[in-house]
This record gives sequence, C-alpha cells and structure tokens, in this order.
Amino acid sequence: MKKKTLIINGMILTMDELQENLIHCGFIVIEDGNIQKVGKLSEVDSSFVNSIPDIIDASGKLVMPGLINTHTHAAMTLFRGLADDIPLMTWLQNHIFPAESKAVNPEMVYWCSKLAAAEMILSGTTTVADGYFHEGSAAEAFAEAGLRSVAAQGVIDFPAPGVPDPAYNIDKTEDFIESWQGKNDLISPAVFCHSPYTCSSETLQKAKKLANRMNTLFFIHLAETKGEVEQTKAKHNTTPVQYLNSLGILDENTVCVHCVWLDEEDIKIIAQTGCGVSTCPDSNMKLASGVAPLDQMLKGNITIGLGTDGCASNNTLDIFAAMDLCAKVHKVKKLDPTVVSAGEVLKMATIDGARVLGMKKITGSLTPGKRADIIMLDLQQPHMQPMYNADNLVYAARGSDISTAIIDGNLVMKDRKILTIDIEEIKERVRSLSRDLTETI
Amino acid sequence: MKKKTLIINGMILTMDELQENLIHCGFIVIEDGNIQKVGKLSEVDSSFVNSIPDIIDASGKLVMPGLINTHTHAAMTLFRGLADDIPLMTWLQNHIFPAESKAVNPEMVYWCSKLAAAEMILSGTTTVADGYFHEGSAAEAFAEAGLRSVAAQGVIDFPAPGVPDPAYNIDKTEDFIESWQGKNDLISPAVFCHSPYTCSSETLQKAKKLANRMNTLFFIHLAETKGEVEQTKAKHNTTPVQYLNSLGILDENTVCVHCVWLDEEDIKIIAQTGCGVSTCPDSNMKLASGVAPLDQMLKGNITIGLGTDGCASNNTLDIFAAMDLCAKVHKVKKLDPTVVSAGEVLKMATIDGARVLGMKKITGSLTPGKRADIIMLDLQQPHMQPMYNADNLVYAARGSDISTAIIDGNLVMKDRKILTIDIEEIKERVRSLSRDLTETI
Repeated sequence: MKKKTLIINGMILTMDELQENLIHCGFIVIEDGNIQKVGKLSEVDSSFVNSIPDIIDASGKLVMPGLINTHTHAAMTLFRGLADDIPLMTWLQNHIFPAESKAVNPEMVYWCSKLAAAEMILSGTTTVADGYFHEGSAAEAFAEAGLRSVAAQGVIDFPAPGVPDPAYNIDKTEDFIESWQGKNDLISPAVFCHSPYTCSSETLQKAKKLANRMNTLFFIHLAETKGEVEQTKAKHNTTPVQYLNSLGILDENTVCVHCVWLDEEDIKIIAQTGCGVSTCPDSNMKLASGVAPLDQMLKGNITIGLGTDGCASNNTLDIFAAMDLCAKVHKVKKLDPTVVSAGEVLKMATIDGARVLGMKKITGSLTPGKRADIIMLDLQQPHMQPMYNADNLVYAARGSDISTAIIDGNLVMKDRKILTIDIEEIKERVRSLSRDLTETI
Repeated sequence: MKKKTLIINGMILTMDELQENLIHCGFIVIEDGNIQKVGKLSEVDSSFVNSIPDIIDASGKLVMPGLINTHTHAAMTLFRGLADDIPLMTWLQNHIFPAESKAVNPEMVYWCSKLAAAEMILSGTTTVADGYFHEGSAAEAFAEAGLRSVAAQGVIDFPAPGVPDPAYNIDKTEDFIESWQGKNDLISPAVFCHSPYTCSSETLQKAKKLANRMNTLFFIHLAETKGEVEQTKAKHNTTPVQYLNSLGILDENTVCVHCVWLDEEDIKIIAQTGCGVSTCPDSNMKLASGVAPLDQMLKGNITIGLGTDGCASNNTLDIFAAMDLCAKVHKVKKLDPTVVSAGEVLKMATIDGARVLGMKKITGSLTPGKRADIIMLDLQQPHMQPMYNADNLVYAARGSDISTAIIDGNLVMKDRKILTIDIEEIKERVRSLSRDLTETI
C-alpha cells in the first residue's frame, strides 16, 4: 500500500502559475513522496479527510514550497564571521585563503556542510546548489540530512584542497561525478568552475565538456566585481560573459553566479543562450561588489534564482533574509519602489530557482506530480500579524518562522527540531574545528 | 532589603567604552533595577555567587544591552504588508492616508502599539522612540508592556486623527506632555513634528518652543526624499536642514529622522548644532527614498541611532535586521567593504541610540549605575555557530535569537514568552481591526 499523508487547515501558497496562488484554508495530499492533490478544504468532504490516517494539522501556518538556494559554499560555515568588513583582496589573501589551506579537508567539509544543512533546513531551504572542494564529503552530509542538493566539485587552476596538482582538477571532478551520479535521489553531482580569471580557457572548456558528457549542471562565478570585468577586458579584450560565450560555455545547463557587472550585450547573450543566473545580494553588498542589474535581467526574461553565497560573505544561509534584501536593494538603487517586486522575489526563491537548477519538474511549487518539498511557516508570531497577502513573507518573515520541513516526502524538521541528523554532535565538531583554526592562523 | 539579581555564565558584550567590550564568561549584578557590577566570573569567588539567591544562568547566551529603536510609528503594525511595492505618492495618498483616516482611533493605537511592543521586546528592543497620533494610547500600551519609550505626539498642519482642526495641534501636544510627564519612569513624552513640508514655519517654531519649555525631545522627518529637497529649495530657496536651522529648530534636543539627502553644508550644520540623527535603512530602501550619507556623517562625529520606521514601510520592527541592512547597504553604495563597520552599527543600535534619545546615563550599555536594560541572545542556534567575535551579531543574529529581556530591572520576556501583556488577546484585537479595515477600504 502506498504511504499517504494529508496536510490540512493551513493557508497554502502554491507558487504554481496554473493554480490559484493563495488558498486560505487548503489541503495537500502527499502519496509516496509526490504531491498528489492540492485544493480548498471546503471542496472535500469529511470522509475524504478521514480516509487518510496520517494527518498534519497546519492551522495557523502558511504551507509553501521549500525554498531553493541556488548558490553557496556550505562548508564555509566554519569561516562565519572570521573576518568581516575587510577589503576584498586582503580578505581573500590574508584571511580566507590561509584559513582554507589550513582547515579544509574531508572531515571539515563533512561536518561544516552538515552544520550548513541544519541551518538551511531550519530556515526553510529544501534544495541547495553547493560548490566546494572535497565535494563528496558535502554530498554525504546533505544526503544524511535529507536535503535535496546539487553538489558541484570545485575546479580551479591553483593547488586546491584535495587537488594539490591542478593538472588533475578535471579528472578529480569526473571521479566525483561518477561516484555520485544515480547513487541517491536527493543528490545531483555537478561541476563548479571557480571563475574565468582563475581557470584557463582550456580548463573552462574541458570542464564544460565534462559537464555535457556527464549530463550535469556547470556553475561559474561570473562578472562579480568591477575589477574582474576590467581584468578580463585587458586580457581578452571583451567582457567576462562574452569571453565565456566565445568558449561555448554558456547554455541552459550553465548557471552564472553573481552577474553584477553586465552590459546590455551581456544581458542579451545570457537571455539568448538560456543560462540561469544565481543572484546573491547579501554577498554582493557585504563584499561591496555592486548591485546586479536585476530589473533589466527580469525584463530580458532571464531566469533568476536566489543564492546566499557562503557564510564567510553573508554570514547566514537564510533565504528569507536574502529575499528581503533582494527586493529592497534594487528599489533603492533605481529610486523606484516598484522594481523587483516581492512577487518576483518569491518566484526567484522557489519556482525560478528550480528552473535555474533544471528541477522545474521536481520541485519549486506545490504542483501535483512534483516531489513533496514543503515548508510550514508560523503565522502566529507578532511580527507576522496581521497578514493581508503573500508579499509580506518577503518583507517580514525570517527563517526562524519555519516550523516544519518536508523534503522528498520525508519529514526532516518538526517544531524546529531536525529529525535526520544530530545537531549537538555537529556543533561540537564544528566548535572544535573553529578552535583549531584560530590556534593555527 | 534591596532586590538583587545575578546573571552568570554568559558571554557579555558591554558596549561600554571604559570597560572591556567582550567578556567570555562574565557576571552582572542588578540591584533595585540598576546595574551594580559587571565583570569576569573568574574574578569572583563562590561565596559571592552564593550570597545572591536570585540567579539567572546565561550559559550558551550572549548578554548585551537592550537595543534602541530611535524611530517608529508603532500603531502602524495594522498596516503591515497592506500595500507594498507602490510609488511613494500613490502609496501615501491611495493607501496609507485613507487607511489612517478610517482606522486610527485611540483603541486602534492602543492595541496596535501593544502588538508592536510585543514584537519589539521579542526581537531585543528595550527602548523605543515612537511618533504617532493619539499618542497617549501608545504610551499606555508601552507602559503596560514594560517597554522604555519616548512617546511623541504627532503635529501636522492637516486634520489628523484626534486633531480634526490643526489649529489645536500644539495645544493637543501640550496636553499630552502634561498628562505623561513624570507619570511613569519608563515613559518620556515628546513632540513629533511630521516634516518641514507638512508643518508651517510657525507650527515648527511653536512646537519646538513647546518642547523647550517642557524639556522634551523634538523629532522631525527630514530630507527623506530627493523630491522633498527640491520642493524646499523651490519654496524656501534652501535645503530642508538649512531651512530648519534658520528657524532655530536644530539643537541637541532635536532628533532628525532619515537625513538621506544632505549636502556638505547640511552635514556640518547637523554636527555643529549637536542634533541626533535616526537612520532607517529598511524604510529608505523599501520606499526607494535613497541611501543616507552615513559614512560622511560618522566622519563628522554626528551621533546616529538606528530606526525601523513603521511597519507600513519595513515591514518589521527587528533592529537586528536593520543592523544587517545598514552595514551592507552603505558598503555596496560606496563599493567599499570597510565603511559603516559592524562595530559602528552595533553602537548605533545601543549606546549611540541612547545618546540620540538623551538617555546615555540611563541605558545603551552594561555600565554600573545605568538601569538594567539587558537582553540575552541564544548562541546555540546553528546560524550563530561558530562565534569568533561580536561583529557576527550584525551579520548573523536576528530578533528571534533573543531568549530573555530585562527592562528597568524587570524580567519582561523569558524563553520567548512575554510576561507583561497577553499576546493572544492583542493578536485577536489586531486581527479584528484588520478585518474591519479591509472591509472598509
């Protein structure tokens, strides 16, 4: 017999363009991890409700699709708050790179990605796209946490954790993809090339070829800072976007992360090639990289997902906080309160994030046939009262308002307790790693 | 016998320039509502600890001064999320003003300010500067909640709630101040002139004269939008700041709210006159007003406090969220990650906020002799781990991390339960008001 669960009494935000978006008192049927039916509670009778023994009462809650974080470096939770308010190059060269070269090993990636997984689940994220080194250890952590993930192995033309000789960076990535592809329904392996300025054109093309051959996504940091654009223009006589396009890197299986400094031609190319964009407003603001031309990208029908970036440059993995910031920073940049609306930002954090990650048939909305990635948000907190419409989620809700998380049909968090992993053990391990780190740097 | 309480085992952030700022395992003695002693636990013996029967164990917590919100319109919680992402003038004229003219009465101000008080206490604010109409009802709500407040009665040259004939706006304010001055240690009445463009020069001067005579603070929205500056230049041939200065309005008992559009001369005048500034980054971003020249004001030694503004333009009263936004938006505006540092923002939200409100001898730091306005923050949440330094509070903490709040020596919130007021009754009343509102507008 198939396992059925019924969620009733909650306010439901479907994020499904073909259904009613906000149902004031609704129900959801989950069968074998799939969303089977979504509707108004008033349209079913009590015999239907009574026929399903496993009932979750969502009274006083908002039930919505789990959020999608399209860019982070999960293991960097270890570096949260280690070095704030420092110029980018000093930050990288004197703080982050030395800390990474001392601290990053499979054990660190495993425990610190597990801490990140806990933080993400507790703040409503049910799908994450991660990029780091020793990515197998991150994938293991996400799998144990029950978090849907795109786990992308880092490729860079410098000696890196686990890849002391960059000549083997593509081989290493191929090994990683082979060992994880098809292994776990929740984990999709992928390729993460650091950037056009830290990878040669040869590496970029080899890595993209590998991604194509293995049928995976390809991620790259792109046009993050003004300095990067200037450097690329000096070296390649074109913009970072146009440079990557000339190498054949840009297509609908490529995710361009940041995209802060784009010209009109860059925006056209991204739109034409069908690349996804991951925007990370917290990181771009804190590192003072700039404000992305999001309103122009939206007008160009580019699909945009939201990312937190890693904890060294944010310092949290809370997509609700990123939504608030994203909606506000573009308004003040353009001195126009109508640009990048709350509704557009909610799409970025859900259905459009799923599109960016090639998962629109699996997650991102409460649509029958998709997997059940569902979160419940406590509307009874004073800061959520009163509630006139869903836009208020963007400007008032925070990750801490999430009470329940279901991923792939499994209850992974209930009443703010994570059911899949031992959070006390994780914190203990990460604290021990942080003590080692401050002793050694 | 005097009532003594001892807080032990917590990490203590004093925000006191004469003491050590961060004590890793400390103690605080509170006697009759005053902070009597702050120090390292290792420096006292067990007989001292055992001599005080009332002990609060702050293990795993950060203990810090309660936060100070230097500008809000508390009763506007009723309008939270009612109308987002709308051009300023349409927002005011088609949404906020009609909603206010229908809904604002003493009962509404009382219940909606009480909801605001609950939200503020739950997110770590222990002192608020409020400005609205029927301010006596707001003061009553704050007093019952046990929230330290500057309650300022609104003055505007239009018919306003409770003041149908603006000819009486000063008299009404005088009555309000007389009825609250000296009545309750927690409540300081004050004057809130809406703005230089909604009050005549005569009203502005009369209101300031009243504030001087009654020895209260005088608040005013100032240089919030580019349009306001252009309008003032057209009408008075000078900037809003210089116009107010010519009227003799600016001195150290005046708090200028917003100060987004300032020229160099304006900044000099604010510094010379000793005005306090309340900056409200959430509101300035969401309404697309602009980014204040905070770095230049800080260089000019202007005292700056942080404000949330009202819930129609934010949509929460969370000073932690405002700190994060404040630190980030100035960095990205200047493309410099070193401006408006986390340390500076922490001062704005605590000791400098107290200075702006003329309360530096009473609150804003954990300094012996001050009243005990103390909050405890749960450092055990995954997003607060690991913890290298206090800067991380700005970039990672949120109001929901506050577990305990003490105001004026009284425990007002414990384990996220407010002990002074009935939150269920408040929510019920505000929900009923919100239903009336959406039926009538």
